Amino acid sequence: MLIVMKTTATERDVQEVIARAEQFGFATRRVAGAERSTVSVLGSPLPDALREALERLPGVEEVIRISKRYKLASREFHPEDTVIRVGDVEIGGTEVVIIAGPCSVESEEQIIETARAMKAAGASMLRGGAFKPRTSPYDFRGLGVEGLQLLAKARAETGLPIVTEVLSVADLDVVAEYADVLQIGARNTQNFLLLEAVGKTDKPVLLKRGMSTLIEEWLLAAEYIMAQGNERVILCERGIRTFETATRNTLDLSAVPVVKRLSHLPIIVDPSHGTGKWYLVPSMMLAAVAAGADGLIVEVHPNPDQALSDGAQSLTFENFSAAMPKLARVAEAVGRTVRTPLAELAAD
Amino acid sequence: MLIVMKTTATERDVQEVIARAEQFGFATRRVAGAERSTVSVLGSPLPDALREALERLPGVEEVIRISKRYKLASREFHPEDTVIRVGDVEIGGTEVVIIAGPCSVESEEQIIETARAMKAAGASMLRGGAFKPRTSPYDFRGLGVEGLQLLAKARAETGLPIVTEVLSVADLDVVAEYADVLQIGARNTQNFLLLEAVGKTDKPVLLKRGMSTLIEEWLLAAEYIMAQGNERVILCERGIRTFETATRNTLDLSAVPVVKRLSHLPIIVDPSHGTGKWYLVPSMMLAAVAAGADGLIVEVHPNPDQALSDGAQSLTFENFSAAMPKLARVAEAVGRTVRTPLAELAAD
Amino acid sequence: MLIVMKTTATERDVQEVIARAEQFGFATRRVAGAERSTVSVLGSPLPDALREALERLPGVEEVIRISKRYKLASREFHPEDTVIRVGDVEIGGTEVVIIAGPCSVESEEQIIETARAMKAAGASMLRGGAFKPRTSPYDFRGLGVEGLQLLAKARAETGLPIVTEVLSVADLDVVAEYADVLQIGARNTQNFLLLEAVGKTDKPVLLKRGMSTLIEEWLLAAEYIMAQGNERVILCERGIRTFETATRNTLDLSAVPVVKRLSHLPIIVDPSHGTGKWYLVPSMMLAAVAAGADGLIVEVHPNPDQALSDGAQSLTFENFSAAMPKLARVAEAVGRTVRTPLAELAAD
Amino acid sequence: MLIVMKTTATERDVQEVIARAEQFGFATRRVAGAERSTVSVLGSPLPDALREALERLPGVEEVIRISKRYKLASREFHPEDTVIRVGDVEIGGTEVVIIAGPCSVESEEQIIETARAMKAAGASMLRGGAFKPRTSPYDFRGLGVEGLQLLAKARAETGLPIVTEVLSVADLDVVAEYADVLQIGARNTQNFLLLEAVGKTDKPVLLKRGMSTLIEEWLLAAEYIMAQGNERVILCERGIRTFETATRNTLDLSAVPVVKRLSHLPIIVDPSHGTGKWYLVPSMMLAAVAAGADGLIVEVHPNPDQALSDGAQSLTFENFSAAMPKLARVAEAVGRTVRTPLAELAAD
Repeated sequence: MLIVMKTTATERDVQEVIARAEQFGFATRRVAGAERSTVSVLGSPLPDALREALERLPGVEEVIRISKRYKLASREFHPEDTVIRVGDVEIGGTEVVIIAGPCSVESEEQIIETARAMKAAGASMLRGGAFKPRTSPYDFRGLGVEGLQLLAKARAETGLPIVTEVLSVADLDVVAEYADVLQIGARNTQNFLLLEAVGKTDKPVLLKRGMSTLIEEWLLAAEYIMAQGNERVILCERGIRTFETATRNTLDLSAVPVVKRLSHLPIIVDPSHGTGKWYLVPSMMLAAVAAGADGLIVEVHPNPDQALSDGAQSLTFENFSAAMPKLARVAEAVGRTVRTPLAELAAD
Repeated sequence: MLIVMKTTATERDVQEVIARAEQFGFATRRVAGAERSTVSVLGSPLPDALREALERLPGVEEVIRISKRYKLASREFHPEDTVIRVGDVEIGGTEVVIIAGPCSVESEEQIIETARAMKAAGASMLRGGAFKPRTSPYDFRGLGVEGLQLLAKARAETGLPIVTEVLSVADLDVVAEYADVLQIGARNTQNFLLLEAVGKTDKPVLLKRGMSTLIEEWLLAAEYIMAQGNERVILCERGIRTFETATRNTLDLSAVPVVKRLSHLPIIVDPSHGTGKWYLVPSMMLAAVAAGADGLIVEVHPNPDQALSDGAQSLTFENFSAAMPKLARVAEAVGRTVRTPLAELAAD
Repeated sequence: MLIVMKTTATERDVQEVIARAEQFGFATRRVAGAERSTVSVLGSPLPDALREALERLPGVEEVIRISKRYKLASREFHPEDTVIRVGDVEIGGTEVVIIAGPCSVESEEQIIETARAMKAAGASMLRGGAFKPRTSPYDFRGLGVEGLQLLAKARAETGLPIVTEVLSVADLDVVAEYADVLQIGARNTQNFLLLEAVGKTDKPVLLKRGMSTLIEEWLLAAEYIMAQGNERVILCERGIRTFETATRNTLDLSAVPVVKRLSHLPIIVDPSHGTGKWYLVPSMMLAAVAAGADGLIVEVHPNPDQALSDGAQSLTFENFSAAMPKLARVAEAVGRTVRTPLAELAAD
Repeated sequence: MLIVMKTTATERDVQEVIARAEQFGFATRRVAGAERSTVSVLGSPLPDALREALERLPGVEEVIRISKRYKLASREFHPEDTVIRVGDVEIGGTEVVIIAGPCSVESEEQIIETARAMKAAGASMLRGGAFKPRTSPYDFRGLGVEGLQLLAKARAETGLPIVTEVLSVADLDVVAEYADVLQIGARNTQNFLLLEAVGKTDKPVLLKRGMSTLIEEWLLAAEYIMAQGNERVILCERGIRTFETATRNTLDLSAVPVVKRLSHLPIIVDPSHGTGKWYLVPSMMLAAVAAGADGLIVEVHPNPDQALSDGAQSLTFENFSAAMPKLARVAEAVGRTVRTPLAELAAD
């Protein structure tokens, strides 16, 4: 922690800063600059309360945090990439993992049909919402446990592991009973009690970035989960809220290499929520993989214009299947792979 | 709902839009413009799934929602101001209600001392956190139930009603047992299950705006609570996240008159989180009242430089007491009142 | 400047940082922390190129600027408030200066009538655009020199000094011939050549904050003007661009006390552009004055629904006159004054 | 244009809206909805002043623009892609055009050496700043005309066409004398006089998106240039300002497919300013091409740690050369090409 003194600070002001830091039990180093002094406080982690206390002292211009606030999620403390295994899928390895499926599970036919089509097209996992957060209380909120059961049927049919969202601690047990990966949605990125609860399970967690979450805060959210003993966290960039209204969110693809540098955790991208428009999704699938993403999570629906949620951003089976071969070529161009569509296998 | 067709849309495209809306059961009106056609879909509420379906049809440029998505919270459907009574305090009436107290309850001495000082200075209610959401898992998270009990003691001592945050459905019963007003924090503005749970209690709810919540989404969050039968919702503007880093958040005071126009619910302002710096708080207290706020919620601590949380943005008793007479004058200037400090009463 | 080393940095990395800073001619101090070393570079001002050079060296995590980048605009180097005199008006003194008038000068009748009404209602200066920046090339762009001449007539009639925008260096001479205060609009806050050009005139400059300008960048823009010898800069907060769409911009009133702390320059507020809606303007006028603004600049038009620009955010004469007495009371409440409306004088 | 009436609007309110629109000379169509009426105003283009006038009328809830505000830049009115030829380079065709070079021209040796290295590595054009906008008045601002002359020497040596920024109308003639493409920087995206001035030249214009420019406003800026007769506009996405501070800006790659849909103009990407960190640039070069960009503009410097500007975001020759073969593979994967490095040709 660095305390920057005002140019007008007195010797007494500096001494008080030093005294206060030492009262908290930390050593200090003072540097007299050309215009102003600075005081370094040594030690890690330094409590946030110390920062706030020092900010208030007379003669203090600014207090700057130097140590990172997260450790378990940090690449500095864990240099090698983390690879997370779910069934026969490895997230964070060479394969770019494609997770596809509808926003909401709506019926047995819809989810089974989608699961089969996704598998045939080269997806590795199935997504589908059973518990849905909705901005308006008047919108469809998912089939609940019935939706989970339908997802399990689709898994039984296709072998695809299931990613589904958990909305609350109360639902966690039942969701964890069915899910292979627990998804934490963008509105819950900083729902710390839920983070700790999934941190106590043995399921991998797909942690979406919140709409206004700094990358540092997102890694602290991962830290919450990891601090409970569950180190299998998959980060998911899904767009941030900005002034631009041409897209639903602004997909921040630079978050991919930023996270790769700061953390050892795998990171995937959600171009469906990231753009909100189905016709933008294929381009952003390609861009995400070129940027270094370890996977994609994409909304696909048999009839998007009859979907109960997120129809505007869902691909049709045809859209999705058409995107996959291009995606395979881009993956190859950056030294990665995607699964070969079954159709091609069959054709061999 | 208005469907704007592309200039290149064919007659068949327009007919398909009309057919789809009618298939959902809604009437339509078509307008042929100079460059393009539009189709109005009549009916309210129109399902979001219809909007998404229409957006996908060929020839459609854009779908624009016209009806408001909230009703119970809307002034159009409830023209008179809502006034919420808590003990002898009325929120939304002539009095500007001042809620003050520490970020976290830390000890009996701290909270009792603060409650007394706040009451003496003219506050109407006491705030204090027992369950705290913290960005880092390594920070202090509140005393929990013990904190609630200390708040109850402070209420018994001073008569000030208590505002305290509820973080999760699991804690709701115990928090509601002690609290006079349930606070929903900025990270939970769109925690829909929690909103519905507080909507089933008979306690007034102080609903903070999220860091990246549109005013429309905030009113939809209020709608979630109200749809469960609890119409006593107090909105609280607490700053939004923007590019500016000189302040912790950007306090959006224009939200006060915007909300007054759109909704009948009372709205208060939190200048402490809104700025993140104690020395900016007094100016923004005055500005909020001048803007028409029905109240303020302000962090005050006996020794902010030893606070366990939010020390940098907490006022001292002296800061707070010094701000109150100015606040009374500004309130009077806009036809409102604040409570007379007890000291002045005693001096009579 | 503080160089934060990675936890994995080697001794050689640290030595290279020190060597590079010394090669630029600056002394250094090294502090070995608990987890990582830091190196302070002493001297001021430190070139930006040094910061960028150091950021690239191996083992460097981050480079943090400590010295302020502006001096002439800084309160640290100029503790007393600057008061700027224009005719008999003082900006930055006790009086809250009200600048009112139409977005664009449209006709002699319009501007003279407005000037008289504004003077009668208590305004101290007249605003009006002759050269207008417009987002679309198909919109009205002002009367140009004829507009300036009409403003001069209105000044001759009423004695009100004139504030008008200068869009380019090419227009500067003619605008400066007529204007009492040169306005730099939000799209030109970082038009550095224009800033330097107005810095070479002897006219006060009203410098609007850009839509996405950090307060630090805004003060650096003021520094550009002041570095040319013109220290009469009036800052004007006019709203920043955020995700919220209920208002045209988000008026950042906390910028008022932030600027007061960082700088000695006066700061005024533009609630018209700040909100974009006439019905929000009166509340924000009051809030701005309560926040400590030294003045207001407000759009007023005799018939806003026939205005050639900014009709939606312009007050009528009646709206403006109705707001002034309330404004006077709020100003008084915070120890400031506004001009007494002539009507009241006449009534004495 | 659609006028949405309040649910409480009277018949008279609706009639007044209709009358006002007709007074401006436009026909209307009224639709009585379930809850409220709407009025469509027919005609194009509709003046902005009409929108503002209607917004003020009693009973009006909202006025929504339906027609696009730009025509020349719009794909609706010009369906085929525009391809812009500069020397032997085609921007907007199959080749992904790579423009590379230093932020600022610093010396003859620096620019010639860079031009040769860029050509050898596969770049098609050379960038370099002679007139530099700088946030602080104390930073290096370029060599001016001497810089232009050095760029011309580099072109003579290598045959690479030159892209360089023009900061003001006053400099335009001299910049146009040397430049092959005129660059409008992010701070001048809405400098309308400069846009019109470059619109009167016969040089292609590289128009950067401003830091807080909506895509619609950016296309209107292009419209300004095109309305003067110069239709050779190349759009350049370079990052927008958001709350995230881990990167200098947030590179909005979804702008690429959005612009492709709305406009026929070519669009390139600047990953250097878009991220502000050299180590993020290669990933974002790949991502931009995968997203469909028609080209890249990248900062490269022989010794970035001694650059006079933008050292932190500049690639070395080695970084750049290492990125190019990967880029070629990604381009190929999406059906595009980049120039073959000369070294490879030589090796044939």
